[in-house]
Amino acid sequence: MRRTIDWGEDAIVIIDQTALPADFRLLELRTVGELVDAVKRLAVRGAPALGAAGALGVALAARLGGDVRADAELIAHARPTAVNLEWGVERALRKLDQGPDAVLAEALALLTEDEELNKTASGHAAGIVRELCPGRPLRLLSHCNAGQLATVGWGSALGVVWHLHERGLVKEVLVDETRPLLQGARLTAWELAQANVPYRVQPDGAAAAAMARGMVDCVLVGADRIAANGDVANKIGTYGLAIAAKHHGVPFVVVAPSSTVDMTLASGAGIAIEERDARELTEHAGVPLTPPDARVFNPAFDVTPHDLITAVVTEHGRFAP
Amino acid sequence: MRRTIDWGEDAIVIIDQTALPADFRLLELRTVGELVDAVKRLAVRGAPALGAAGALGVALAARLGGDVRADAELIAHARPTAVNLEWGVERALRKLDQGPDAVLAEALALLTEDEELNKTASGHAAGIVRELCPGRPLRLLSHCNAGQLATVGWGSALGVVWHLHERGLVKEVLVDETRPLLQGARLTAWELAQANVPYRVQPDGAAAAAMARGMVDCVLVGADRIAANGDVANKIGTYGLAIAAKHHGVPFVVVAPSSTVDMTLASGAGIAIEERDARELTEHAGVPLTPPDARVFNPAFDVTPHDLITAVVTEHGRFAP
Repeated sequence: MRRTIDWGEDAIVIIDQTALPADFRLLELRTVGELVDAVKRLAVRGAPALGAAGALGVALAARLGGDVRADAELIAHARPTAVNLEWGVERALRKLDQGPDAVLAEALALLTEDEELNKTASGHAAGIVRELCPGRPLRLLSHCNAGQLATVGWGSALGVVWHLHERGLVKEVLVDETRPLLQGARLTAWELAQANVPYRVQPDGAAAAAMARGMVDCVLVGADRIAANGDVANKIGTYGLAIAAKHHGVPFVVVAPSSTVDMTLASGAGIAIEERDARELTEHAGVPLTPPDARVFNPAFDVTPHDLITAVVTEHGRFAP
Repeated sequence: MRRTIDWGEDAIVIIDQTALPADFRLLELRTVGELVDAVKRLAVRGAPALGAAGALGVALAARLGGDVRADAELIAHARPTAVNLEWGVERALRKLDQGPDAVLAEALALLTEDEELNKTASGHAAGIVRELCPGRPLRLLSHCNAGQLATVGWGSALGVVWHLHERGLVKEVLVDETRPLLQGARLTAWELAQANVPYRVQPDGAAAAAMARGMVDCVLVGADRIAANGDVANKIGTYGLAIAAKHHGVPFVVVAPSSTVDMTLASGAGIAIEERDARELTEHAGVPLTPPDARVFNPAFDVTPHDLITAVVTEHGRFAP
């Protein structure tokens, strides 16, 4: 598959994740405003992919001229929770005094690294999962999308599935649909279908019942920000899943590139959690799901304390808080 | 509000719950086939309301003539999990040898009792909730719909909200949207809006995060079947919610009429769990949510062991396993 996000002729090219699984289509982003809009409405999403978006955004701004540092601020704060976005912006900005070509070269280097680092991190995690759950074909549970589409390529948590599937070790992946935006049902299921990995989609509320029935050997998730003590911010629902996994003695493994670690935060308590639009819950495809004017509680992420997590794995191996 | 299910001129009249919250409309069910279809597609749902549907179904069959016992079998097994359906059928059947009018009278007596028993049960539960969470305006969490629409009238778990709201004790109800069929977002939110109770709808995955933020004083749910040891079958997602409540020390209270108790079952392990159609997860209003031909895990209910439940409350008060 082509990269989730890449540089084209004079534009950032992304796979439009709002159109999947019905349509696979590319978007060319030619202005900083178009990029910020694409990030806000999750046409490109996933912490590692947002790191690439940050760096390519600065490269785009540098080529277009204008106030690059002001543009960089807009990009860095398009969404608040994933630390990678700001990290990608800052890394590209460091080359600004060497001119637009140097900025673009740095951004493209970051993209290549992202693919490699996620492949390495998920390889480490695959080894850890095999140690935790030895001697059987694996039934894995996935929340949200931490696959190719959440990264430049390959994927983080779903990368573990690709490594294990190559060795014939995956029996089934249970896919949390992941309300409200259904990244599991739409994106993870699409990736698994493309790769011919057996999967079933389930309502988020069915995960604990699946564990009670002995249908889950290990839970695999990505991360949007990891604090120094190993607390993990990830898609809403991750925390409840971790509590249920602990209750059932099911290993809970987080996989992310080290760019997701924010050593400036002592714990997850300091992570800003994005609250998103009510319409994500009050309607679907224009059909109302609630009474008119219903108020909502719609945090995009939650924080899972480190003591509920079996292992946080980056390209350096197991993360030691 | 009129009753959720009642007897009309020559038909069973129900509020069509598939049309809410957009449309409030009534359906007249004139044949046993129409009733069975309405039960299967959840136009009428909720364990106590299904008890009424069972009894009225036998009354309808008796008036129409034909093989009433065969019709009663069809009705009793239209859905497998709620014990009330079979219970309502059996109760009405006991009057069959006294003629159709006696059967109808028995069914109507059951309807009147259902309203009274749920009002009593939820009154007991309101007292227990006040003891568990004294001295503060209450933030309650609701899953699925255990309101007027799940019963003939008044409601079970949501009945507790009506009792507490009458005394000005409800600060807010957090409403799990309850995928896949959104009984929380569509039905519970609609009832709360009608009654002017403050509420917010949340994705099911946000419940644990809401507890961690200290936004929940007590969880209130209904039940579809209660085993002799106090294990509770209820809408999928209830079990994970109970694990999260235990983890946070939040009281978890189940409210149901005693017709929901099945003393023939020693524990929840014996409860048959309905698996529903894949399309509940793969599409919404004709829009695909997953890749074509996605397989699903779609159990309608899960079983919560009694040790995760603070109190099961019926019209007789706290249920002692």
